[in-house]
Amino acid sequence: MRHTYRLNIACPDRVGIVAAVSQFLAHHGGWIVEANHHSDPATNWFFMRQEITAESVTVSLAELRQKFAPLAEEFQMQWRLVDAAVKKRVILMVSREAHCLTNLLYRWRSGEMYFDLACVISNHNDLRSYVEWHKVPYYHVSVNPENKTMAFAEVKRLFQDYNADTIVLARYMQILPPDICQEFSGRIINIHHSFLPSFIGAKPYHQAAARGVKLIGATCHYVTEELDAGPIIEQDVVRISHSHSIDDMIRLGADVETLVLARGLRYHLEDRVLVHGHKTIVFAQ
Amino acid sequence: MRHTYRLNIACPDRVGIVAAVSQFLAHHGGWIVEANHHSDPATNWFFMRQEITAESVTVSLAELRQKFAPLAEEFQMQWRLVDAAVKKRVILMVSREAHCLTNLLYRWRSGEMYFDLACVISNHNDLRSYVEWHKVPYYHVSVNPENKTMAFAEVKRLFQDYNADTIVLARYMQILPPDICQEFSGRIINIHHSFLPSFIGAKPYHQAAARGVKLIGATCHYVTEELDAGPIIEQDVVRISHSHSIDDMIRLGADVETLVLARGLRYHLEDRVLVHGHKTIVFAQ
Amino acid sequence: MRHTYRLNIACPDRVGIVAAVSQFLAHHGGWIVEANHHSDPATNWFFMRQEITAESVTVSLAELRQKFAPLAEEFQMQWRLVDAAVKKRVILMVSREAHCLTNLLYRWRSGEMYFDLACVISNHNDLRSYVEWHKVPYYHVSVNPENKTMAFAEVKRLFQDYNADTIVLARYMQILPPDICQEFSGRIINIHHSFLPSFIGAKPYHQAAARGVKLIGATCHYVTEELDAGPIIEQDVVRISHSHSIDDMIRLGADVETLVLARGLRYHLEDRVLVHGHKTIVFAQ
Amino acid sequence: MRHTYRLNIACPDRVGIVAAVSQFLAHHGGWIVEANHHSDPATNWFFMRQEITAESVTVSLAELRQKFAPLAEEFQMQWRLVDAAVKKRVILMVSREAHCLTNLLYRWRSGEMYFDLACVISNHNDLRSYVEWHKVPYYHVSVNPENKTMAFAEVKRLFQDYNADTIVLARYMQILPPDICQEFSGRIINIHHSFLPSFIGAKPYHQAAARGVKLIGATCHYVTEELDAGPIIEQDVVRISHSHSIDDMIRLGADVETLVLARGLRYHLEDRVLVHGHKTIVFAQ
Repeated sequence: MRHTYRLNIACPDRVGIVAAVSQFLAHHGGWIVEANHHSDPATNWFFMRQEITAESVTVSLAELRQKFAPLAEEFQMQWRLVDAAVKKRVILMVSREAHCLTNLLYRWRSGEMYFDLACVISNHNDLRSYVEWHKVPYYHVSVNPENKTMAFAEVKRLFQDYNADTIVLARYMQILPPDICQEFSGRIINIHHSFLPSFIGAKPYHQAAARGVKLIGATCHYVTEELDAGPIIEQDVVRISHSHSIDDMIRLGADVETLVLARGLRYHLEDRVLVHGHKTIVFAQ
Repeated sequence: MRHTYRLNIACPDRVGIVAAVSQFLAHHGGWIVEANHHSDPATNWFFMRQEITAESVTVSLAELRQKFAPLAEEFQMQWRLVDAAVKKRVILMVSREAHCLTNLLYRWRSGEMYFDLACVISNHNDLRSYVEWHKVPYYHVSVNPENKTMAFAEVKRLFQDYNADTIVLARYMQILPPDICQEFSGRIINIHHSFLPSFIGAKPYHQAAARGVKLIGATCHYVTEELDAGPIIEQDVVRISHSHSIDDMIRLGADVETLVLARGLRYHLEDRVLVHGHKTIVFAQ
Repeated sequence: MRHTYRLNIACPDRVGIVAAVSQFLAHHGGWIVEANHHSDPATNWFFMRQEITAESVTVSLAELRQKFAPLAEEFQMQWRLVDAAVKKRVILMVSREAHCLTNLLYRWRSGEMYFDLACVISNHNDLRSYVEWHKVPYYHVSVNPENKTMAFAEVKRLFQDYNADTIVLARYMQILPPDICQEFSGRIINIHHSFLPSFIGAKPYHQAAARGVKLIGATCHYVTEELDAGPIIEQDVVRISHSHSIDDMIRLGADVETLVLARGLRYHLEDRVLVHGHKTIVFAQ
Repeated sequence: MRHTYRLNIACPDRVGIVAAVSQFLAHHGGWIVEANHHSDPATNWFFMRQEITAESVTVSLAELRQKFAPLAEEFQMQWRLVDAAVKKRVILMVSREAHCLTNLLYRWRSGEMYFDLACVISNHNDLRSYVEWHKVPYYHVSVNPENKTMAFAEVKRLFQDYNADTIVLARYMQILPPDICQEFSGRIINIHHSFLPSFIGAKPYHQAAARGVKLIGATCHYVTEELDAGPIIEQDVVRISHSHSIDDMIRLGADVETLVLARGLRYHLEDRVLVHGHKTIVFAQ
């Protein structure tokens, strides 16, 4: 894997942004290996992602950041300049269903996805031995109507102790309290087992069966306080027919959930997702 | 094209239905070229579609129907036995958008789809000359808030005069009054430009853009009194991204609408759709 | 899961097959929960799959088989009547890539797919501990140009010792010798990492990159003596662009391979695949 | 539609290209509305497409071209700078099948695709009246083994007389002679009714049926002297099963051909396709 830096920018649109940024990068030797832009005419806002080989840059990353700051200020940029080699610390949260967990653990242990797996948190103990075989810490934090406040205080403490960059609700099936949603805004990723905005909330496959749809889907989105209403990162669907029972739908949907979550998380880990209001710009490859 | 008869059955499920029906068909020489069954465990109802070559049957269609009646009664069947060679009379209704109309006219004139095109009804005059080139009658029935009752009385009269089997709302953009929906229940097919149940009603692409979905879709369904809530026949989607404006979505969506309507209509014309409550059994090939 | 029997039939087409079979089943109380037919006009051959609830049948499975034999003979049927509750014994063969293996192990241990996992055979030792965590025997049979004959004799012995119904080459990357292909004809399933018949043989993703295709795919097929030419069970594709390197293609393709193999194997395990010449009839749900 | 200029560049990769080009554009006021880059590590070549609003540029297009020339020379660029408002002159060539023609005529007459339709050339007379209803000239140039040389001399004369920018073989079914392929290299677009490189040449659906594939496809590519081997612009597939006859495959495939050709042609008309060797870079939206 090439060692790269990633520069993400969002700012009001105007002439000269690309020129200024690319001139700045060229001035410091920056060899651009991938570049993406987006101009949003509705809000007149501009978005950019640049991936530059680290070895081409003639100064340190810290210095590059320092030198970029005045330019960023001039254009009123929101920006991030990160070292792609620094792994993000990820916490997975699961309940009893193992399809997303198994898939993400595979991608992690094989190096197919690039992140540090801090720990797994679950409201059940079912998946402990599988996770621990991977030498990943497993925390069982039981959640019930009586202990919710304490349970989520414990969850939050784990987020903080592990200094988590990203939390993935890999079929966690519990609703996080508003304070966690706010504090970790833009950092908690959920997979919902429907093609949102259809079938918000519980038992979406049952809802889909009741409506008689011909495709079912899954949605990967950032978690916000409003249930299943956060910015959508990725979606996909699979065809069904009258011949599929709800159990069949759950089974077919699981494959879609698995892939949609993996794609969405990859975009996030590779700094390809820029959130703008309640929508996303995803500079997919 | 092989000359066939089609037998569709819906009845309470029990042992021996297939045996009785296939024995009946075999007794009259019926060579089955396609057969589909479905047992719905939720309602304990059974559905069946048989396609039989006409020349194999040793009696006339009328006689076959007559002889089948007692068996149908025994099993409390809802049933239809039709001659596939008898074209269904179809009326197309359009507004100004021509993509679905152009496509269906092509399929009709090339023989790719098998039906009689009775006439086209539109609330605008834009597509008259294109339709008339095909030697198909074109009726301009203007609809506005003041004349709605009279306009739809005229529309209904056309349905009746032409003895229409099937009415296709090929992006008609007007809501049919309840009495028409009821009288032609199961015979009016609409294409809605969203992946229902998401984005019911007006301007679904604008709704989709506002929500930031990553796929847009189209839904072909039977029209009922409740807006966009009728039994779904067919759906499909296409991928979009942040880079697509609403105009792009309308353009990309048009291709999906066109195909979904054509597929849904084909299923209907080939007697592949059985409505059960507010859902469909579609015995697609 | 409902306890069912499955009856698969292939025979020369003629009037009365369905009648005879369904009458036979009804006579013994057989409640049909799924039925599929196919008439192939090119070869005038008929194919059928019936799934019947076991508890509805008034005789034993052995007796049902015995009673069916004369009817089968009359219609010159090739047929199988199996108890769906009897798990097929499966051997997985892998090399170093774990994506298909991890996925199939998940489906097996979660009960999402229904089979006995006899053992895993690999020409490498890499995946031993992961497999053994599942309490599944792991055999490392090294294969090199010098020891091929002995190595595959060992492999064949394992097939026989474990009395394998089905062998799955889950990215095994070695070519099985003709005698094994013949002896286990119709029982060895391979996943090839291209959309066959494009890119037969080694390094299909490199071939695809060289040709500049815009979709890459995977093919699940029965293994025959001729390389990558066996009857195809299932295929699928994923979109790529110029921006994807060969490494990206390998990564994206792995997800397609995983799903295509899982779907193909499921069809096989559920007795949904009938081989006819070098093609398949797949009575997918 | 916004009035824009489009700048396409291909050159050896090195640091500073984006900086130089974007600085040049910014210097002349160029408001970039869409930008795409691609670095090909295999050949160390760089590709870029910029779309700039015309009204933002402070000099004329001619002047902009003139001023860009030295920069282009410095970086050894192959480049084009075009006015998107200038319609490309397109000739459609067809045989008897009308699905692609009908679709492209619709997109053209509705303004959904932006080009001048110079004329239609066919080796049959079947589609004359349909084309002429659109007020588009129709040339019937019969082709048979005896008159090939003369016929294609006539075809070439029409290309020249109409000063065609782009020729679209919309299911033309005749092989163009090498001299035409050479002279109009990169300007002739064909739709082949298979997922290339599978099933090159005649009757691909028959070839697909013989192999028993589970997906069939279509490929839009630039025509070169070697049959069905030119740079691929776009491809897609549709699922089939054993139940589909060759006629069904032809029917289902026609929809894929139609969409793939329309997408490929759109990319070409919008200057989104850069040919590099026998592959394409397609800067799709």
